[in-house]
Amino acid sequence: MIYTPKEEIVKRTERLRELMEKASMDGAFFNYKIDYFYLSGTMQDAFLYVPLEGEPKLFVRREMRRARRESPLSELIPIRSLETVKDHIGKPQRVGMQLDVLPYNFVMRFRKLFADAELADVSPLINDLRKIKSPFEVSLMEKAAAIAKKVYEKIPEVLQEGMREIELGGILESYAKSLGHEGLLRVRSLVFEAYSWHILSGKAGSIVSQINSPMGGLGMSPAFPVGASRKKIRRGEPIMIDFGACYHGYQVDETRMFAIGYMPEPFAGAYEACREIHYRVLDKALEGVTCSELFNYSVELAHKLGYGDNYLGYSHHKVNFIAHGVGMELSDPPFIAVNQNYPLEEGMTFAIEPKMVFPRQGACGIENTVLMEKDSYRVLTNMDEKIIIVD
Amino acid sequence: MIYTPKEEIVKRTERLRELMEKASMDGAFFNYKIDYFYLSGTMQDAFLYVPLEGEPKLFVRREMRRARRESPLSELIPIRSLETVKDHIGKPQRVGMQLDVLPYNFVMRFRKLFADAELADVSPLINDLRKIKSPFEVSLMEKAAAIAKKVYEKIPEVLQEGMREIELGGILESYAKSLGHEGLLRVRSLVFEAYSWHILSGKAGSIVSQINSPMGGLGMSPAFPVGASRKKIRRGEPIMIDFGACYHGYQVDETRMFAIGYMPEPFAGAYEACREIHYRVLDKALEGVTCSELFNYSVELAHKLGYGDNYLGYSHHKVNFIAHGVGMELSDPPFIAVNQNYPLEEGMTFAIEPKMVFPRQGACGIENTVLMEKDSYRVLTNMDEKIIIVD
Repeated sequence: MIYTPKEEIVKRTERLRELMEKASMDGAFFNYKIDYFYLSGTMQDAFLYVPLEGEPKLFVRREMRRARRESPLSELIPIRSLETVKDHIGKPQRVGMQLDVLPYNFVMRFRKLFADAELADVSPLINDLRKIKSPFEVSLMEKAAAIAKKVYEKIPEVLQEGMREIELGGILESYAKSLGHEGLLRVRSLVFEAYSWHILSGKAGSIVSQINSPMGGLGMSPAFPVGASRKKIRRGEPIMIDFGACYHGYQVDETRMFAIGYMPEPFAGAYEACREIHYRVLDKALEGVTCSELFNYSVELAHKLGYGDNYLGYSHHKVNFIAHGVGMELSDPPFIAVNQNYPLEEGMTFAIEPKMVFPRQGACGIENTVLMEKDSYRVLTNMDEKIIIVD
Repeated sequence: MIYTPKEEIVKRTERLRELMEKASMDGAFFNYKIDYFYLSGTMQDAFLYVPLEGEPKLFVRREMRRARRESPLSELIPIRSLETVKDHIGKPQRVGMQLDVLPYNFVMRFRKLFADAELADVSPLINDLRKIKSPFEVSLMEKAAAIAKKVYEKIPEVLQEGMREIELGGILESYAKSLGHEGLLRVRSLVFEAYSWHILSGKAGSIVSQINSPMGGLGMSPAFPVGASRKKIRRGEPIMIDFGACYHGYQVDETRMFAIGYMPEPFAGAYEACREIHYRVLDKALEGVTCSELFNYSVELAHKLGYGDNYLGYSHHKVNFIAHGVGMELSDPPFIAVNQNYPLEEGMTFAIEPKMVFPRQGACGIENTVLMEKDSYRVLTNMDEKIIIVD
């Protein structure tokens, strides 16, 4: 197992404090596990308090021995009752909590710990931190990408006419797990539950669902109406395999196109247009323009290439983004989307996914997880991008 | 696909209104998808408003066509802006929201829709409703149980010495998906992410983790520190396979014990003790005693059988429950646990799981999903309960 190095935690905490100072917070609690993992190195049942000055304190419910092994923090305190926590935090004036994800009842109860202090939202700060990945974080994403690559390379061996989308999804996930994929993907959302098996074949690619995506898929039932379904995969239809992989908490997101026998039009041509948009947007990003401008540029390109009606969905189902940040969650900043008035920066990682939908026919597209570097970018999901035809 | 029948939705809504009237709520919003699915039949991106009188209104963001097909409700309204929602809800005085799960920021923003009304928590009401399953709901749980049974029957074919826990988990999940298992399990919790592959072999069964369970397992990394791990499964060690299955949103939870070659002591004997506790507690439940008494009774039995130190964990790692409700979430009421001062009732479904942990050695136990009937109970997960020895 790989543990988060102490220097990582120290640096992250320092940067957090700079942001806290600017936001006039003299303390912040982290009860949502993705974020306290980022700041402590452990995901055991615990919560973290970061004061503006002094050591961060990790309050551990269970399991202390594992928390000690995983976390380089020096102050790990067993939780007996919330009353005892009070003694450790002093009298802060303005305290942050993760108000975007913590349930209302939880916040109301927990904030009694600091009843006299003002309550503030610390999530914008931690999102701001997390959007820039360190070389350590990138190394974990590279390992996730290596797993995904092996999964995609396996597909020609297992894909067969007549197999159900969900069957293929299960086989790929099983293989990914044997390589170290953690099975669950994570996302900061009330509606969207992330999963690995977003496999849409033929018409299923043109079906919209609850998720904010150009193509939701049929899913398994009204209670799980997204992703792979029991539809059988046929010869000569586009098969979109959008498989996310996760290694030690770090995710990559990737899409490649497959077909049995041959890839029919309009999908073969539209796929090439998606690739062109993908790389021209990345090149444009190096000029330092804002994400909002990048998004508009991609829409212009789609129109010029003759796919304006199909780009990112059809009619009122179009989505307003072409890329989402990826890291510990599939919903990290940045977003190449409308109203995102900031440029991409060195250290950001995101999944860029130009996709086309043809009503009642299907969908195609490409997706890569990309790292912004100094004056360049690097595609982490370095699987070959040709359409793969299986016989 | 199976859609929720109209009579189901009508009955659930009627019962909800009785509870709302008692709680003096003249309207309630359901934004958390498990609950609005229960009351509307669709899980498309939407939210539901149930007024004390008049038709429930489902506000749909996407996808309206699928929502119409899935939901028998008559008033489906596309959401253009929250302002337009205001026009549909009138002037309620006291409005419920799902305050146990909805994020703080979301509630604060959403409640502007009814800024002059008092805010109340509707989750205790919906939990109260959902804890009693209808025959329709039970039929879906029976189908989930049939999938789980086939998964357990498959294990002797695939379990091999030297295979990793996660490999076995992947193979079983893949097989379950091919049978209709939906892949994701659901739970109403900030900390616990549910998953199907809780496979713990040998010493891994004695490892505690973030989850409120006697045995958490090693997991895959510090970022996913629960469940199956990369540990290799060996001959002559207890292999606990705790596999949940989900069909059309309804789950069952189940545990059976396996070994390669032979099941060593103390696990073989302790497993029989677990079975005895399991059935004696269920028999006692028919006397109408409270869940708290049932829990204490189970602890007494464990002591009498000589496993007091091992029952439900060891030393300070013991958990305080022996059963959790199961349905659309793994955390439904009832709980056979301390401080649960109500009896089991007809129509309740729950997973009862007496388990024993032996420090540094491993764990064993049984788990069944059970339905309370009039003056009897029925085990839905009707897989054979013998320890299965694979050669």
